[in-house]
Amino acid sequence: MITLQDVRDAKRRISQLAHTTPVFSSQTLNILSESSVFLKAENLQKSGSFKFRGAMNFLLSLSRENLRNGVVTGSSGNHGQALACAGKILNTNVTVVVPEDVSAAKLSAIKGYGARIERCGRTSTERLNRAYEISQQTGAIFVPPFDHPWIMAGQGTIGLELIEQLCDFDAVLVPCGGCGLISGISKAIKEILKNARVYGVEPEQSNSTYLSFKAGHLVELKNINTIADGLRTAVPGTLTFPVVQKYVDDILLVSEQEIKRAVVFLLERMKLLVEPSGAVTVAALLSGKFPLKNKKVVAILSGGNVDLFALSKWIKEIKQGG
Amino acid sequence: MITLQDVRDAKRRISQLAHTTPVFSSQTLNILSESSVFLKAENLQKSGSFKFRGAMNFLLSLSRENLRNGVVTGSSGNHGQALACAGKILNTNVTVVVPEDVSAAKLSAIKGYGARIERCGRTSTERLNRAYEISQQTGAIFVPPFDHPWIMAGQGTIGLELIEQLCDFDAVLVPCGGCGLISGISKAIKEILKNARVYGVEPEQSNSTYLSFKAGHLVELKNINTIADGLRTAVPGTLTFPVVQKYVDDILLVSEQEIKRAVVFLLERMKLLVEPSGAVTVAALLSGKFPLKNKKVVAILSGGNVDLFALSKWIKEIKQGG
Repeated sequence: MITLQDVRDAKRRISQLAHTTPVFSSQTLNILSESSVFLKAENLQKSGSFKFRGAMNFLLSLSRENLRNGVVTGSSGNHGQALACAGKILNTNVTVVVPEDVSAAKLSAIKGYGARIERCGRTSTERLNRAYEISQQTGAIFVPPFDHPWIMAGQGTIGLELIEQLCDFDAVLVPCGGCGLISGISKAIKEILKNARVYGVEPEQSNSTYLSFKAGHLVELKNINTIADGLRTAVPGTLTFPVVQKYVDDILLVSEQEIKRAVVFLLERMKLLVEPSGAVTVAALLSGKFPLKNKKVVAILSGGNVDLFALSKWIKEIKQGG
Repeated sequence: MITLQDVRDAKRRISQLAHTTPVFSSQTLNILSESSVFLKAENLQKSGSFKFRGAMNFLLSLSRENLRNGVVTGSSGNHGQALACAGKILNTNVTVVVPEDVSAAKLSAIKGYGARIERCGRTSTERLNRAYEISQQTGAIFVPPFDHPWIMAGQGTIGLELIEQLCDFDAVLVPCGGCGLISGISKAIKEILKNARVYGVEPEQSNSTYLSFKAGHLVELKNINTIADGLRTAVPGTLTFPVVQKYVDDILLVSEQEIKRAVVFLLERMKLLVEPSGAVTVAALLSGKFPLKNKKVVAILSGGNVDLFALSKWIKEIKQGG
């Protein structure tokens, strides 16, 4: 299991290369959620999501020798963009295996960072297997999307940054997919702020962490159907999940409608573009599913990579329907 | 004419109540504009625009006695929202005279801050006259949208903040409407950074400052037709314009298409919702109309109050057309 020192080392390693993202508050959100809310804007992180922290920490943890043959991963989204962006900064060759049906926007973002693209299948298993195969063939280092101590420690730097920015708080809400983000953050926060609570937030329609957390063992989903594409994970990681079991207080579930409302609220009222996966935390606050009241609460906005046509559709749906 | 000390006093007055807005940069924008660009995110200011600074400085410059009967203004947009928001914080009654055809979104924002609404006519002359009439009848203090030293000094606090945040820079790009913003900012910056240049940016289709600047006297427009609704001003202010003449280096013009492209770029790449009036500065950079290259440049993003249906339309137009 990662240690607090691992997270501190990651912070020192990436601090000159990752943004210290700002924290925002809104009187309207405070009133609507009956809480004092602080939004950690990782949508403004390099590459558009928190994934940059883990990817950069991974690359910086490798030796120069290891980096010589480049790195490879499989990703349909933020992890691929983050690794490509980090690789560009460090002048390292990056290969990203993307699904056959990758969106034009994501493809163009990954290409924009100069990464090599390979298309393979449609599932994460297919593309990760292919990435691993490339790694075996070429000597490029395989970079897993979440289930690795360097990735977890990188994401955990958000926890340390929050303590620097806010000193103290009562609770933090974190999106859950493979649990790389929540495992890193909960490790950092619970070791320093003993009384702070950590809540995971998941879409109702992609609730593998919730089911695993309640069952006490990993539960794999067969059907996943959510607009929160960053949280479409069939099962939490084998390294991340024990950290969740040890440190996380509860997992909250939000509906697709609640997620869309949160995306539109963040855009209209906070002027921030946040992707559905990043807006689940605000969805939990606005829907009243967060159980505490009148507390100092942090909500992580984990990313902002949204297809603008999909955004237009959600705007229409929420503004006309609601 | 306002002095640097007026701006410093304004900063002291409003500093606990206004946000110190963050400054963002983007490698992509730097490459596209061949500049080192820093975006001052006043779209994240309270009430969604820089107008909060001037409105709050105005209210705090009044005596308790003066505030007793409240304040009144005429506005179709950001000034009304800003005054309503400042009034709510200071527990002062605010009346905003809005046009008959005010948008539902703006009306709801102004009402949301608890201001009293009155509808009158469709032109700014009609609603400002009505606001002045209300002031005469009720003793409420009339708060002009831009042409007043307290408003100008309040907006100028952005200039001081930028110098604190960035130490030094070569140029700053500022949206021009009534010139309250650019007069305050140019005063503050030119008095401290003698060599920094200040550029105003205006829509081609609402170019009163450009025409006045070139003519050397106020020129009033008859036809205005721009999506940048905060810059639909027929003529610069009689107090603001002499400051523009003294300190501003040039006025740049951008097309409607360039403005829409900038709004979509800021949303997609920077994850920031910026209204057309606030995006004209980035439009000047992306279109190549900004004349300097390889300089350290600040672009003011002056506000983020956008109708989301209009935004969806621009997304469709730009993403499909371009």
